[in-house]
Amino acid sequence: MMEFHLEARDPKTRARAARFITDHGEVSTPVFMPVGTIGTVKTLTPQDLSDHGTQIILGNTYHLYLKPGMNILRKAGGLHKFNAWPGPILTDSGGFQIYSLDDLKKITEEGVSFRSHWDGSLHFFTPESVVDLQRHIGSDIMMVLDQCIANPSDLETARRAHHLTVSWAKRSRQHFMNTEEIYNHRQYLFGIVQGGIYRDLRRESMETLMEIGFDGYAIGGLAVGESAEMRNEVTEFCTDILPEEQARYLMGVGNPVDLLDSIERGMDMFDCVIPTRNARNGTVFTQNGKLVIRNARYKEHMIPLEKDCMCYTCRNFSRAYIRHMFNVNEVLALRLATIHNIYFYMKLIRDAREAILNGNFSAFKADFCDKYSNTGN
Amino acid sequence: MMEFHLEARDPKTRARAARFITDHGEVSTPVFMPVGTIGTVKTLTPQDLSDHGTQIILGNTYHLYLKPGMNILRKAGGLHKFNAWPGPILTDSGGFQIYSLDDLKKITEEGVSFRSHWDGSLHFFTPESVVDLQRHIGSDIMMVLDQCIANPSDLETARRAHHLTVSWAKRSRQHFMNTEEIYNHRQYLFGIVQGGIYRDLRRESMETLMEIGFDGYAIGGLAVGESAEMRNEVTEFCTDILPEEQARYLMGVGNPVDLLDSIERGMDMFDCVIPTRNARNGTVFTQNGKLVIRNARYKEHMIPLEKDCMCYTCRNFSRAYIRHMFNVNEVLALRLATIHNIYFYMKLIRDAREAILNGNFSAFKADFCDKYSNTGN
Repeated sequence: MMEFHLEARDPKTRARAARFITDHGEVSTPVFMPVGTIGTVKTLTPQDLSDHGTQIILGNTYHLYLKPGMNILRKAGGLHKFNAWPGPILTDSGGFQIYSLDDLKKITEEGVSFRSHWDGSLHFFTPESVVDLQRHIGSDIMMVLDQCIANPSDLETARRAHHLTVSWAKRSRQHFMNTEEIYNHRQYLFGIVQGGIYRDLRRESMETLMEIGFDGYAIGGLAVGESAEMRNEVTEFCTDILPEEQARYLMGVGNPVDLLDSIERGMDMFDCVIPTRNARNGTVFTQNGKLVIRNARYKEHMIPLEKDCMCYTCRNFSRAYIRHMFNVNEVLALRLATIHNIYFYMKLIRDAREAILNGNFSAFKADFCDKYSNTGN
Repeated sequence: MMEFHLEARDPKTRARAARFITDHGEVSTPVFMPVGTIGTVKTLTPQDLSDHGTQIILGNTYHLYLKPGMNILRKAGGLHKFNAWPGPILTDSGGFQIYSLDDLKKITEEGVSFRSHWDGSLHFFTPESVVDLQRHIGSDIMMVLDQCIANPSDLETARRAHHLTVSWAKRSRQHFMNTEEIYNHRQYLFGIVQGGIYRDLRRESMETLMEIGFDGYAIGGLAVGESAEMRNEVTEFCTDILPEEQARYLMGVGNPVDLLDSIERGMDMFDCVIPTRNARNGTVFTQNGKLVIRNARYKEHMIPLEKDCMCYTCRNFSRAYIRHMFNVNEVLALRLATIHNIYFYMKLIRDAREAILNGNFSAFKADFCDKYSNTGN
């Protein structure tokens, strides 16, 4: 079982501070995991990541399987050696990526066949093969193959996806127990709760997964079209039931306020492309809301993206310079904006954790949301 | 006059080691200046540059004039403040960029009118306005506006360009003397020798420029179509005549062997887009020649771009990983390859300087060229 230590509970909400332990280091929660889809958190080196507070990154089994492929990862000695990230790595199973392929997939009880988005070649994943792939990748935390559906989906669709997901979860855990790590470190396996917006299905999903027993539990099938209200409701319902003494991971969430909403409801781990993808589009996060740096109004702003921000970008460059770089299509702009957004997310989560440890998460959150909605850039 | 101190002369060649002094720091020569056309050495931060041995960078007046424009540079407090590069900056006058615009330019005795490559808008540069622009940029070393021609050009074309260039050089120096720096540091002005491949013109050009008197002398109109043999001949002819106690800058050169050829003939300063542009195309330099990292043969090479190289890229990543990043269009690849190439160039020049100080430049050069032509990657 993955070691997980609860450190504090906020007195007024379900927010919690904890830490879990992997062979690549301890992780303090709540934690945000930058997305390194295909091995790299786009535009950043491992040095950039650790300099700006990243504890753990995410990789995608689907993407890594297609490129560079398992032979190369195996020859490299696993993803940690390949991409030079020395800290913990969590890998998504590919369930969500395959869900996103639309017409290119076909799901059966046995597994899922899909066509590569690179070249259209045909591939087949099973719950077992996905465990094997993650053995080859060598991620510290592996995710089971699941079936993700859009929100809203009708009850029958949600029920079928849930049944398949728990059946695959059993097979995943079984195969996980029957196989061993390839490299010299321990690997853990998380289950994924599905069930759409239906409480009975979500409950049944959790009960079955907890019976099987996993190192942590993820909530899947959110951030796929539902309202924030609905997401919060499902999250809250799930954290009513999930075990207190294990990690809880809300997949694919989200915006700064979404993160605080979910931390408030007892979630520990998050991943999302929002900070990195937004950065590459020229949108950066500040305490006072988002800022579209390409905008001509920043042309002569000789101040940092964010006042008093301690990231490399803000310590060295003005809005005017970063806008200039976007304006002339200079790729350094992408990195500088990404550094800032990653730092912003890491600091937000670190501050949230601090507030939980100090027992004043609600006040912290109210403060943050108040400033953030003010958009005074 | 810019302080310039000769430190050593190679006993067997004209190679020389020296240093010159600017208000943003001393520069040891021979020196290679990475090209930061529009404010940024593409893909790199100032930190990347200084971590990998860069002493001085180049900016382009033409490009900076168009974007971000002088108002913004003035508001920023000059280019050093804008791009956060704390070391010396040399700016090209725009002569070469305008030369490259082909149909978009019109040259008269008064100056040159040209159309912006961004939006086709019409602009006019004079020798005087180009000095003013560089006052606004705040470069440590400014270059006079010159007329560059292709090689080969007929004698009449070369003569006209040479006459215009020296006439402009006089006006540039005059205007330089009549104006002052805008920011709190000294600025110097270099003359540019033109004359194509014609010795009489080159001689006349140098004699006139030396009579006018500049802080250093550049050889222009090379690396524009002539053979390496012809370039070496012109370079050697020029260093026969140029003053010993001042800096000599060979503009736009070149490949590693070109640099050593030119150092051997007594040149001190170099700039070229080759290391940075090649990197972004996936071509990296090693002691054993160039290596096209996108090539499938490197797919499973779990060794660095170059054995024992101490750059960030080689200390952390394999050829296989860098190839993978190029293969999936990950922009971090561009930066990692650029870091390596800049480090390679800086180390080459540092080693050349060391050899000059040790009095064995010829042996060093022979060794390098022997290995380099071997292409054993």
